Amino acid sequence: MSHKFNWEKLQTFTEELFKKAGVNAEDAHVIAESLIEANLRGVDSHGVVRSDIYLRRLEAGMIKTKGEMIVESDGPVTLLDGQNHIGAVVGSKALELIIDSTKKHGTAVVGVKGSNHFGTCGYYLLKAVKENIILMVLSNASQTMPPTGGIRPFIGTNPFSVGIPAGKYQPFILDMATSVVARGKIINAAQKGERIPDTWAIDKDGNPTTDAEAALEGSVLPLGGPKGYAISMFIDILSGVLTGAGFGKYVNNMYENWKEPQNVGHFFIGIDISKFMPVSQFKERIDRYFDEIKSEPTAPDVNEILIPGELEQRATQERKKNGIELPLKVEEELRAWGDKFGVDLSAALIETPQTEKN
Amino acid sequence: MSHKFNWEKLQTFTEELFKKAGVNAEDAHVIAESLIEANLRGVDSHGVVRSDIYLRRLEAGMIKTKGEMIVESDGPVTLLDGQNHIGAVVGSKALELIIDSTKKHGTAVVGVKGSNHFGTCGYYLLKAVKENIILMVLSNASQTMPPTGGIRPFIGTNPFSVGIPAGKYQPFILDMATSVVARGKIINAAQKGERIPDTWAIDKDGNPTTDAEAALEGSVLPLGGPKGYAISMFIDILSGVLTGAGFGKYVNNMYENWKEPQNVGHFFIGIDISKFMPVSQFKERIDRYFDEIKSEPTAPDVNEILIPGELEQRATQERKKNGIELPLKVEEELRAWGDKFGVDLSAALIETPQTEKN
Ligand SMILES: NC(=O)c1ccc[n+]([C@@H]2O[C@H](COP(=O)([O-])OP(=O)(O)OC[C@H]3O[C@@H](n4cnc5c(N)ncnc54)[C@H](O)[C@@H]3O)[C@@H](O)[C@H]2O)c1
Ligand SMILES: NC(=O)c1ccc[n+]([C@@H]2O[C@H](COP(=O)([O-])OP(=O)(O)OC[C@H]3O[C@@H](n4cnc5c(N)ncnc54)[C@H](O)[C@@H]3O)[C@@H](O)[C@H]2O)c1
Repeated sequence: MSHKFNWEKLQTFTEELFKKAGVNAEDAHVIAESLIEANLRGVDSHGVVRSDIYLRRLEAGMIKTKGEMIVESDGPVTLLDGQNHIGAVVGSKALELIIDSTKKHGTAVVGVKGSNHFGTCGYYLLKAVKENIILMVLSNASQTMPPTGGIRPFIGTNPFSVGIPAGKYQPFILDMATSVVARGKIINAAQKGERIPDTWAIDKDGNPTTDAEAALEGSVLPLGGPKGYAISMFIDILSGVLTGAGFGKYVNNMYENWKEPQNVGHFFIGIDISKFMPVSQFKERIDRYFDEIKSEPTAPDVNEILIPGELEQRATQERKKNGIELPLKVEEELRAWGDKFGVDLSAALIETPQTEKN
Repeated sequence: MSHKFNWEKLQTFTEELFKKAGVNAEDAHVIAESLIEANLRGVDSHGVVRSDIYLRRLEAGMIKTKGEMIVESDGPVTLLDGQNHIGAVVGSKALELIIDSTKKHGTAVVGVKGSNHFGTCGYYLLKAVKENIILMVLSNASQTMPPTGGIRPFIGTNPFSVGIPAGKYQPFILDMATSVVARGKIINAAQKGERIPDTWAIDKDGNPTTDAEAALEGSVLPLGGPKGYAISMFIDILSGVLTGAGFGKYVNNMYENWKEPQNVGHFFIGIDISKFMPVSQFKERIDRYFDEIKSEPTAPDVNEILIPGELEQRATQERKKNGIELPLKVEEELRAWGDKFGVDLSAALIETPQTEKN
């Protein structure tokens, strides 16, 4: 039986764990906020489930908590060396730099090397749009997808994301992996003994498969064939080849490589709306756009046209109200860390009776 | 029976047509070069087949050939008002601006309004990469795709593209429509009486269909469901909402609207490689990346892993050697314009006997 947790208390708990693991208060706050926000938005794959691996890598000395990151700026171009700090901390530093630089220059880029897995891109986008900045965030990731025609992982599911503020609407938040579907969906199908569409994955010999188990031994496919492959590749080139971070096999897998830092790279592009038109005019125009798209006739069985980010916004409202449900395995992992560090997970439990989940 | 044409002579012929239609020599060259380059690269949908509609719109006064475009720059941010000049001419002006501005500032953006259909993005990318600039080119387009859950066209197949120079390899050229497949492939299937996968298009009621005829009455779908919808939408927002160009239904269809200019918008983002590392070092890194990806084991029946842009590069070599084959209908249209303007299409014919095409 799984339980629901109060989001604020779960965030405090998570923050405490990272503080006990040697992270300073400010950074611990950033990490916990980014993880809990992912859960709130329904992106559970990037939520507190990642605490365990982050804490294990911290404990193993594979991630640094001390020392300064290195910033080199030349006009609107900045290179940030994250010096192997925690991904969300490096990402937040890049965010601070891109906001400042975009406001100063009108447009700017920040390339990042020496980073780690930094969670969801949406976390950074949501902060930038509040400043009336359009932000694009790219990141490479360790190898999980084959190139088109290949049979084994070479590129990551490198996320592509764009955040754009609106007026009366919630911001536009496009935040996606470059794979057809998240690997988590294939794991689910395997657990339920269900078949998967033959477009999701290939088996270890490179053949399309509808067998979820065979898919898990093979690789998840890029979205839309060569198009997703090409998108994932350009992200690897900007985030990795250009910045001096790892790329392809040089982005180390955080679960498997316990000898080297990950050396993940990110790439941030900022655009100041006010350089094009008054922000109020832009917001009127984008609201009109959303009004019109939401007034479109819908297909049978579809109630409503959604703006990217809207589903996640609704999940956030619901989960802030009703709590974040964690799988038992995740609860147990967190509890073990809590026990070790003397922080009580139960304080975050929501005490209403829960129905059995399958 | 269709014929093959010598690419250089066909380009000269096309250039002459546009000059006779009142376009100055320099602009006529740009238009002809961009159309022929598309044919050379195998992107026949954006090749000389478009001469007819461009010439008809010129003749109807729906596109301008005189007067200056308007450029407003503030540091690395530039807004270009194309003043309803021909798309490829406006696109080439934007290219000139983004190259200059990127070299000057290290990174830059150029937003474009008041433009027209500008052909393939690849045309601009190939020129930028010669300057050791990484270029992203986006454009909106008239309505052809529904939003996810919708049943009729609202967004365009808004192209997304990125060009990146390499060392010993040809440049990386990602240049794609945001639809699952080009509409041309559905037209082909309809002509052959073949069924199409149910993921390509919906019928006019919004239901997935395998009937190519029903698909043509309906709409082509965005690549990868909501992901392609969201990508197409962000391109519309940057190219249209932000620049002051049309967006959604305000981008007029060049085939259907004979009362108003198209008001297409584009968005160019440039990054100067040398601000991150010496260009030679970048080229070594990207060559290593391509070496490694091309050494990956391949799936059964796949000979080779390709870099985006490589297929088109090979098509160019082949077509420069053996000629560009045009469908009879396109040949007839071009010949009619040639007759009208006193320019001889036959001069561009390759005189070898051709085999019958289906
Ligand atoms: N750090 C890393 O290495 C890494 C790697 C891959 C993915 N990620 C993260 O994983 C997360 C999940 O990615 P995903 O691809 O599974 O996301 P997803 O498929 O759930 O959503 C992708 C996008 O489509 C939008 N969307 C979904 N359904 C929609 C609809 N019906 N109408 C309109 N818009 C709709 C969403 O709002 C979102 O912007 C992202 O937050 C991403 O940043 C991180
Ligand atoms: N101006 C407009 O309004 C407009 C609108 C839509 C499309 N377009 C143009 O249409 C053209 C065609 O678009 P498309 O989506 O049909 O292109 P496509 O599907 O043929 O190719 C998309 C990309 O994938 C790459 N690719 C294809 N197969 C590959 C493989 N096996 N391995 C590696 N890479 C591979 C190509 O090199 C290309 O970069 C583009 O030039 C685009 O700019 C223009």
